[in-house]
Amino acid sequence: MLNPKDLLLYLCTDRVLALGRPIAAAVEEAVTGGVTMVQLREKEASSREFYEIALALRALTCRLHVPLVIDDRLDIALAVGAEGLHIGQSDLPLPAARQLAGKNMFIGVSASTVEEALEAERNGADYLGVGAVYPTRSKADAGEAVGLDRLAAICAVVKIPVVGIGGVNGDNAGAVIKAGAVGIAAISGILSQSDIKEAARELRTIINKVR
Amino acid sequence: MLNPKDLLLYLCTDRVLALGRPIAAAVEEAVTGGVTMVQLREKEASSREFYEIALALRALTCRLHVPLVIDDRLDIALAVGAEGLHIGQSDLPLPAARQLAGKNMFIGVSASTVEEALEAERNGADYLGVGAVYPTRSKADAGEAVGLDRLAAICAVVKIPVVGIGGVNGDNAGAVIKAGAVGIAAISGILSQSDIKEAARELRTIINKVR
Repeated sequence: MLNPKDLLLYLCTDRVLALGRPIAAAVEEAVTGGVTMVQLREKEASSREFYEIALALRALTCRLHVPLVIDDRLDIALAVGAEGLHIGQSDLPLPAARQLAGKNMFIGVSASTVEEALEAERNGADYLGVGAVYPTRSKADAGEAVGLDRLAAICAVVKIPVVGIGGVNGDNAGAVIKAGAVGIAAISGILSQSDIKEAARELRTIINKVR
Repeated sequence: MLNPKDLLLYLCTDRVLALGRPIAAAVEEAVTGGVTMVQLREKEASSREFYEIALALRALTCRLHVPLVIDDRLDIALAVGAEGLHIGQSDLPLPAARQLAGKNMFIGVSASTVEEALEAERNGADYLGVGAVYPTRSKADAGEAVGLDRLAAICAVVKIPVVGIGGVNGDNAGAVIKAGAVGIAAISGILSQSDIKEAARELRTIINKVR
């Protein structure tokens, strides 16, 4: 089960954007700084490599008491016993994933329009990742920026919690929360900073202040 | 459950090697010509696209009464109800896959050494794909050719059925069977031929004659 508070500061991993630092060490820094949930994204790894990194992160996130979410790969999520699965619009359809995931795994869905958000909610998504809120280079496939107005429109029509993702940093995180998001998700805003722990801490302080 | 006779002539798909012909139409031609089992390989597709192609092939292979095997992606195999999963040495470890696949799904494993073959058998593989028997350009990651002698050595030490894959064509299919393989697997030997049905028929005739 997903606790909406786990969405406050959601770290999505990216090996390239971590500037060569090992993912496990980077995740530990980030969680120590205030990250509340971790998503493992491995778009280029083989299944074996993805599985092994996921197993290692699973042990780490258990120890750190934050949920682990696997991007796209339901088989990896099931194999390592991850708490959550995140699917985008080009991943497995939510109803198919839901049927295999069982009742204990929560599922988040990426949405960039009101229609996608409503469809995901109707199909049983546990949370939405809405973005890219601002232009970003972290995700090559993120498309045109959604903007704060559409983020607010989505937050207004769905009952499930929303996190804003894409180009979110210390300067605009407050605005994302004020638009109705429960939390923010970050990749480079945390992983590409020289001091990962401090970057997470700053973002978390802003979120706590605005909420 | 896998019937060893399903391994006689095993088609592995590859969209590039099908020379632009739609996969479903190519598979139907191949099965009509004598292919006994079909593996869907989609190394570049998004999960959604892979799922949709797998769903379409699942309907087709049901109608044609041949088992469908999904390469690598256990989640896709489960989602479409495929009969089998095939995993390579860089895919999910067999014990993890076995635990999630349930009792009804058979699992084949790629092996290119006696050690890999014995380990896969010990871990519960239902069949082995051994290769590349001959040099091939169909699989970029196939590595150095295994050769007939090592194929024969593997067939001699394992009890589970073996198919020879990699560079197998009408000229050498007989030798692969004589080395102890139950059947052969082909990609370009069928899919890249101008008459797919005829290519399958010729291979099947050779296999039937030698067995």
